[in-house]
Amino acid sequence: MITLYHCHGARSFRPLWMLEEMGLDYELKMLPFPPRVFAKEYLAINPLGTIPFMVEGDTKMTESSGICHYLGTKHGPTPLVVDVDETDYGTYLNWMFFSDATLTFPQTLVLRYGTLEPNERRQPQVVEDYAKWFLGRLRAVEAATGETEWLCQGRFTAADVVIGYALRLADNLGLSKQFGPNVAAYWQRVQQREGYRRAVEAETRAGDEQKVARRA
Amino acid sequence: MITLYHCHGARSFRPLWMLEEMGLDYELKMLPFPPRVFAKEYLAINPLGTIPFMVEGDTKMTESSGICHYLGTKHGPTPLVVDVDETDYGTYLNWMFFSDATLTFPQTLVLRYGTLEPNERRQPQVVEDYAKWFLGRLRAVEAATGETEWLCQGRFTAADVVIGYALRLADNLGLSKQFGPNVAAYWQRVQQREGYRRAVEAETRAGDEQKVARRA
Repeated sequence: MITLYHCHGARSFRPLWMLEEMGLDYELKMLPFPPRVFAKEYLAINPLGTIPFMVEGDTKMTESSGICHYLGTKHGPTPLVVDVDETDYGTYLNWMFFSDATLTFPQTLVLRYGTLEPNERRQPQVVEDYAKWFLGRLRAVEAATGETEWLCQGRFTAADVVIGYALRLADNLGLSKQFGPNVAAYWQRVQQREGYRRAVEAETRAGDEQKVARRA
Repeated sequence: MITLYHCHGARSFRPLWMLEEMGLDYELKMLPFPPRVFAKEYLAINPLGTIPFMVEGDTKMTESSGICHYLGTKHGPTPLVVDVDETDYGTYLNWMFFSDATLTFPQTLVLRYGTLEPNERRQPQVVEDYAKWFLGRLRAVEAATGETEWLCQGRFTAADVVIGYALRLADNLGLSKQFGPNVAAYWQRVQQREGYRRAVEAETRAGDEQKVARRA
């Protein structure tokens, strides 16, 4: 059994979406954000206090894009993974790593110093620097989505899951107004994907159940 | 033929070290840091201007830890990669992604706002916030290196290459004084590794040749 710890809208949406794309059985545990502040008991499960956290038997993982690649390779074969013998294998792997290390990290700075920190600790210069950084790196996605529907190997893959999530976060942060035309169109395609919709529904349903449980 | 673009001490050291561990042929191209400022012609090769950049035939990659996994899986089999059927496969993948998305990103903030930016744009609060963040996440490495020589599967793997580099960068940033005892001992083991030493030598040699070429 796969257990996934998730906060609404957080990076753990990547493995949630991947689980839905693959049709795997899983248990979704919702936590308030950030859990290391609002759910201190979570530190006994994941000492780093970070989200996501995925457990399957003795395997424990904390990296959202890494979990997607793990699920696809461990529970495949699936067209969601580009295989080592396919043309776009290196491109696929690069998107997998790029999604979090290069695209999501600048977004976390915009979120932290623009919203999460108390007023006296906010840093408008850092918010501006890293919004610019994010949009600069997004040019790689703009270039890759001009003539093809999905990022690599001529089909929807886990690369679209992990990059697609970065666009969802950008939308939540108010950065989607600055998407280039190709990224804007790609983001629309992403949201129409069945697996994406199912993941959003699963997240909403689990959140509602959590609210009911809290009231009871 | 594999071509790797590298700046002294930058994240491109990860694939350089992996190439040395695997004994693969490669061409190393040294650039001044940051290349998007001091080697504008590089933008025609890698439009993002980031380091590393690896080219092998039609495959082009920019993610340092992703390139290591690519090299190991594409040019293997090698004990440097943990296979999908091995016990620590998920753990291995998690370290591969953790190395850059979780460990190196906070380091880049310490570097940027503590050293690279002009004085009026430095941000001591951000430097402090992200030094603390880095050291907090490093507790995962402290916990993993207490009883075993290397991070996973009972042998030296690409996970040690990518995490080992994060420790090298921390040392350069003056953060190694705050390593826990296990990480400090692990960092010593890493530096004694033959492949690590060969990569440092290759970097130094290429840098020297570049200086000679510039003078000529």
